[in-house]
Amino acid sequence: MPKITDAKILILATDGFEQSELERPLKDLKGKGATVHVATPDGSAIKGWDEDNWGDSVQADLALDAVKVEDYDAIVLPGGQINPDILRTNKDAVKLIKDFTAHGKTVAAICHAPWLLIEADVVRGRKATSYPSISTDLKNAGAHFEDSEVVVDNGIITSRSPEDLDAFVGKIVEEIEEGEHSRKAA
Amino acid sequence: MPKITDAKILILATDGFEQSELERPLKDLKGKGATVHVATPDGSAIKGWDEDNWGDSVQADLALDAVKVEDYDAIVLPGGQINPDILRTNKDAVKLIKDFTAHGKTVAAICHAPWLLIEADVVRGRKATSYPSISTDLKNAGAHFEDSEVVVDNGIITSRSPEDLDAFVGKIVEEIEEGEHSRKAA
Repeated sequence: MPKITDAKILILATDGFEQSELERPLKDLKGKGATVHVATPDGSAIKGWDEDNWGDSVQADLALDAVKVEDYDAIVLPGGQINPDILRTNKDAVKLIKDFTAHGKTVAAICHAPWLLIEADVVRGRKATSYPSISTDLKNAGAHFEDSEVVVDNGIITSRSPEDLDAFVGKIVEEIEEGEHSRKAA
Repeated sequence: MPKITDAKILILATDGFEQSELERPLKDLKGKGATVHVATPDGSAIKGWDEDNWGDSVQADLALDAVKVEDYDAIVLPGGQINPDILRTNKDAVKLIKDFTAHGKTVAAICHAPWLLIEADVVRGRKATSYPSISTDLKNAGAHFEDSEVVVDNGIITSRSPEDLDAFVGKIVEEIEEGEHSRKAA
């Protein structure tokens, strides 16, 4: 059984990520002994969004094009209204999410980040949740929408909002310790 | 033939509307002699978003629940990443857009505002455009996506971004002067 203390986890985000949805997983997963790296489109620091205005910046550990999928056990996608709306137009970011899924890695998206799962077309036939505003987009993308604090289907973890962060991070740890997922057909 | 000088046009928005996408249609349509009202969820002033930060406020003429569809020839929906993401969770706003469509009124949405057309489920089988980031959401909602400065299908006008505002406003005038649309089946 893989241990969270041996795990390597990637957080992918850009400007406008919801502050707590990057910082809490970063802190809590590191606190559990995992190695956690933050990747941004060009490797520069990115600016958070704290509820109703721009927030604090977070340093990047690497640029998107330097990420090797095989180095990681999981990818975590913070939300915010702005961050995933920008990232979904980045072909390399969308390809990376597809690659994590194709390799059976844990893929975790919270709040508005399931837009990235829609863009990567990895929720078709899967159970998923999200911030309420994008539930129609998830359903239209073929997901079975559930209004729960955390939903897992075949290694894809989704949550609704910052209030679900405890359940979200807890489920990331659980899924990583279960090991890589042999993706079942949807 | 209806004239733009006799037309009554409603702009519906909330906080985080893209500044130019509300102010330009408001100014230009008034400039052409139309009566233009701004409706907001509770009738209060709303705060714009000017490219990369909060912008100026705009006063409301009325609250959403005071709008009578039969009073207007058209509804205009400005974009922004924040405004339509909030508005689409407002059932009354979504119902109003459905009602404008059902009554054969002109419905115009720019940039990220086509999310509201998705939520109202009025683009199925229709040609439409949007800001590039939400093109997948439009396609998944059954729209035939076109990458053009302005697209019209059966009274529904869509444009991509502030750069398309001239074409967008021009087409609103044209559609209003054509008169109400007897909606064809999609």
